[in-house]
Amino acid sequence: MLSEFDLIKQYFVRPARAAKAQLGIGDDCALLGLAPGRSFAISSDMLVEGRHFFAGEDPYRLGHKSLAVNLSDLAAMGAQPAGFTLALALPAADRDWLAGFSAGLFALADAHDCELIGGDTTKGPLNICITVFGEVAQGQALRRDAAQPGDDIWVSGTLGDARLALAGLRGEVALAPEAQQLAGTRLHLPTPRVALGRLLAERGLARAAIDISDGLVGDLGHILERSGVGATIDIDALPAGPALAMSPAAQDVTLRRACTAAGGDDYELCFTAAPAQRAAILAAGAACGTPVTRVGRIDASPGLQLTDGQGAPLELRLAGFDHFGTGK
Amino acid sequence: MLSEFDLIKQYFVRPARAAKAQLGIGDDCALLGLAPGRSFAISSDMLVEGRHFFAGEDPYRLGHKSLAVNLSDLAAMGAQPAGFTLALALPAADRDWLAGFSAGLFALADAHDCELIGGDTTKGPLNICITVFGEVAQGQALRRDAAQPGDDIWVSGTLGDARLALAGLRGEVALAPEAQQLAGTRLHLPTPRVALGRLLAERGLARAAIDISDGLVGDLGHILERSGVGATIDIDALPAGPALAMSPAAQDVTLRRACTAAGGDDYELCFTAAPAQRAAILAAGAACGTPVTRVGRIDASPGLQLTDGQGAPLELRLAGFDHFGTGK
Repeated sequence: MLSEFDLIKQYFVRPARAAKAQLGIGDDCALLGLAPGRSFAISSDMLVEGRHFFAGEDPYRLGHKSLAVNLSDLAAMGAQPAGFTLALALPAADRDWLAGFSAGLFALADAHDCELIGGDTTKGPLNICITVFGEVAQGQALRRDAAQPGDDIWVSGTLGDARLALAGLRGEVALAPEAQQLAGTRLHLPTPRVALGRLLAERGLARAAIDISDGLVGDLGHILERSGVGATIDIDALPAGPALAMSPAAQDVTLRRACTAAGGDDYELCFTAAPAQRAAILAAGAACGTPVTRVGRIDASPGLQLTDGQGAPLELRLAGFDHFGTGK
Repeated sequence: MLSEFDLIKQYFVRPARAAKAQLGIGDDCALLGLAPGRSFAISSDMLVEGRHFFAGEDPYRLGHKSLAVNLSDLAAMGAQPAGFTLALALPAADRDWLAGFSAGLFALADAHDCELIGGDTTKGPLNICITVFGEVAQGQALRRDAAQPGDDIWVSGTLGDARLALAGLRGEVALAPEAQQLAGTRLHLPTPRVALGRLLAERGLARAAIDISDGLVGDLGHILERSGVGATIDIDALPAGPALAMSPAAQDVTLRRACTAAGGDDYELCFTAAPAQRAAILAAGAACGTPVTRVGRIDASPGLQLTDGQGAPLELRLAGFDHFGTGK
């Protein structure tokens, strides 16, 4: 039988590396220092089986996604990943599952030089809770409350494929296997936009930012509320993901708009910036290989107005995801 | 229906206080700074219904205990609490439960000036994951790997009452209602020894330390392993809790020893220190109102030897708690 301590030792304690932590796994606490003039950005996300992922989800993908959603929060602050803790409730200590999960987790962690510094393992219904720590220079963090009227609204990458994949899995749309596969990569192996977030913060290009986990409309709504502003979004300017673009089912404009404007799980960044920064923002996107698209503007008067490609107002009911509401 | 955002706003966002965080709840990340020469001590604990607490546990006590076990990890490093994140999976958004849980949580948090800076809420089997942040001067943290041969071994407070309460609840022993009540306070409302841990670290009195969550024998074993030393413990010198001391059932020496030496959930500190520090350690205990008792010594040769009050070696099978093993 695999004990709790053996489990941690075999799957989560790794050979000595160039450690950022002054003290890592194996004590009551980890110890982490911070250079003068910098702050820690800290975020926690909890993933529950049947809620955030299907029962029986591939453990490699789950390891990746569990960390990705947290790194995405760091990206949205413009912070550089430093380390994370992992608390894990498992129904059983299954070696295959643990090997897959830790491989997916560490592949992404290593790509971002983000060190596992501690955590907890216990028996229970499958639950993965990661708390991530990043560093950001004081005053440079991209906050939700910093949008100003006249700002452009931008999104990184493409939107809608993660929601399309979910629709396919649920049988809400009929997708060709290649489209399901392509879209599924976005749903299961999201790419946190860490490099873009850092450039936007370090170069002082963006004002407010948020990551799109619950859908653009809902997440942008948090920026609007915290900044006391409104916005107009050209819904047909939203950059659709490749699976959405290629799929016959997505020629239905209502489905396409629902996926790009309100689909969750894309983990792109939505950010606002002064119009004077347009060229510099395009350059930052190019520098880190992440396309950026201008999709609207911040208004002084409250409310989110959606328009079509011709600028005509649309009335759409597109709610963000609410874990205790009726959901989408 | 109570939405996720309303739930957070009503029960977890509090009126502005003298905040330690540069940015608290409501953004992608919280921001926390650190004074020069200091480090963050970081620990995560996950509590699962049916594993760490009984189904239907009183929510006030659960709020208290969820934070207490984390503060106890800070205490064992000698760190000063600064803030924490809370990730919460709930089967339903029950107002009475949330009111009780948040009241218990914040009563303890306020007593230690430890601020809730962020987190996550979702639907799922009840699971509470807290990550806590404390501050400690660089080089002063009480690590598990610092014990030296010849050190005294000390424990704070008293041991065994939490395990006795569990034995009573499980029907393993028959306890009078007053004894069950008294012991239950230790099980359900543990007191993290934050002030003692800080004094031991700041005054440079202790070398190694750990908090006793899984039983003294198992937890001290971690210090021995990490420090590459052994120890001798006088099992009859272990300070028994008041319920254990008063209960007729605990006149059974085997039960008493099992509770004090291997009972979990007491959240006392076990620490090692040079014999030259004895008077200063007693003074530190007195200064913060926490009794401290010398119970053994660190040996150069590996292994943990238990002796009785007369110094005769005992052969006891007392395992620490293992979440994936057979348990105790």
